[in-house]
Amino acid sequence: MREKELINIIKETAKSDYIGDDCAYLKDLGIVVTQDSLVENVHFSLDFATPYQLGYKSVMVNFSDVYAGGGEPKYITISLSLPSYTGQEFVKEFYEGVNDACKSSVKVIGGDLTGSDKVYVSVCAIGTTNGHNVSSRRNAKAGYKVVVSGHHGSSALGLKMLLSKTSEENQFIKAHLMPEIQGDFATEISKTVKEPYAMMDTSDGLMDALSAVANESGVCLDIDFEKIPHDKDIENYDNWQDLVLFGGEDYGIVAVIPEKYEVNAPTIGYVKEGDGVCLKINGSVIKYSKKDVENKIFNHFS
Amino acid sequence: MREKELINIIKETAKSDYIGDDCAYLKDLGIVVTQDSLVENVHFSLDFATPYQLGYKSVMVNFSDVYAGGGEPKYITISLSLPSYTGQEFVKEFYEGVNDACKSSVKVIGGDLTGSDKVYVSVCAIGTTNGHNVSSRRNAKAGYKVVVSGHHGSSALGLKMLLSKTSEENQFIKAHLMPEIQGDFATEISKTVKEPYAMMDTSDGLMDALSAVANESGVCLDIDFEKIPHDKDIENYDNWQDLVLFGGEDYGIVAVIPEKYEVNAPTIGYVKEGDGVCLKINGSVIKYSKKDVENKIFNHFS
Repeated sequence: MREKELINIIKETAKSDYIGDDCAYLKDLGIVVTQDSLVENVHFSLDFATPYQLGYKSVMVNFSDVYAGGGEPKYITISLSLPSYTGQEFVKEFYEGVNDACKSSVKVIGGDLTGSDKVYVSVCAIGTTNGHNVSSRRNAKAGYKVVVSGHHGSSALGLKMLLSKTSEENQFIKAHLMPEIQGDFATEISKTVKEPYAMMDTSDGLMDALSAVANESGVCLDIDFEKIPHDKDIENYDNWQDLVLFGGEDYGIVAVIPEKYEVNAPTIGYVKEGDGVCLKINGSVIKYSKKDVENKIFNHFS
Repeated sequence: MREKELINIIKETAKSDYIGDDCAYLKDLGIVVTQDSLVENVHFSLDFATPYQLGYKSVMVNFSDVYAGGGEPKYITISLSLPSYTGQEFVKEFYEGVNDACKSSVKVIGGDLTGSDKVYVSVCAIGTTNGHNVSSRRNAKAGYKVVVSGHHGSSALGLKMLLSKTSEENQFIKAHLMPEIQGDFATEISKTVKEPYAMMDTSDGLMDALSAVANESGVCLDIDFEKIPHDKDIENYDNWQDLVLFGGEDYGIVAVIPEKYEVNAPTIGYVKEGDGVCLKINGSVIKYSKKDVENKIFNHFS
């Protein structure tokens, strides 16, 4: 049973219209809300990540969702479950990482602390939407352009390096442990674009985001691989094109917006009638259905 | 290292004024927010609790906090981490329990689903405060009365029975697995009382709540054990007075309010100058400091 099938069961059972985007938009309250968790030995290993890095990343991945939803993060709650092999120092360092991710603009307002047998972190982030145009992955339209911000593939390569224990600290490992997120770019989009538009973060991989927008909007995205922003050094590694396309946790932003807007990120393609993602790569065009993308991610990165 | 000491480290590191009550009150947004987690083999065992009961309880414990904060629950996000020994049926039943807890008044708006080696549930609940007077455990004043709603000790006795595997399903086991919460009573308080007042749920035990209000407000609570509402059948069990006073997870409500308000729950005592909880029990008065209560709960129920 894969995650996406289970999420469909949740949607059906909970009968909720809100589930589907990076964030839920609560129009009556003028806020967006998201919750994401990191589980030891599933999303991170304490062999690689320090408590500080874990605190930092746990918060950042949620801020990324708030920005992708078209909001501005303001408040977070944190649920932290800790085994007996952690203690006072772990909690202190973890919250120092949280603080540095929040800077002065976001407040920690609550949460809880429990025992457990592995480290488990769940963060809920609330963002305000005043003055922003809230996004939805259902809003892409034929004629819109696809813009993307953030280097893709870096985090997945960094994870590979950590797992093979062959590399010193470098930009890829840093991208995995302490991800930069694209808050300024997402805010530029949500404050500039006046029409309905689509925006997602690339937490589950760039192709996952492109495919989700295509599928939810009922359109086809024509993408040119050559335009996708990535660290040039990644080209020295095996399988680098797959890392760029399908590697997760880069927390870049994909926005699909009317062509007239000039924004501070490269255009990687355009929307046309149809379905799926048509990828121009190595001189040919490959069409990826939703299922193709899911299989590719599942086989390579599960 | 005990939970309360770790929470002090979090307060110091996160430099947040919001941490301390059952809920954080975000005045600018007119909402209260809380997040609470349940961890397999720490807060529940799948030997006793069905997925339905777990879904129901995970949500209810958060609603209890929202009501205790003086709000009305409206939206929840749920993070669910599942091991491979669960699957489709588990998710479906869990969300049926969630639905029945939410009734039609609260919407599930998001969350996530991850792998893990044990079942972890973390729920974030958002409540509105429009027309309500928000509570704080710092607001008790000399002359106020202490009212309490909900039967105390039942859940802890139910847990004892489940652990000893000696009893058939009864009201105590039901109180543990499918707790009733005191939403109507808490709403009566938050809509009726006009002055600043204190309110807490008794999730960590009645004495824990009384002691927290006394300590945070800098007052003494004079409590008469005989007035504490409890199921009369509990008196047939060993150690029942300790269960009523120190047993957790009853999700009753303690409210400390001006005497003039007539409310739909028994008065168990009054506030006077001083500190701690002065408990009239079995013909004598025992004074409990904050430390005494923490030790008692830690020794009996950790």
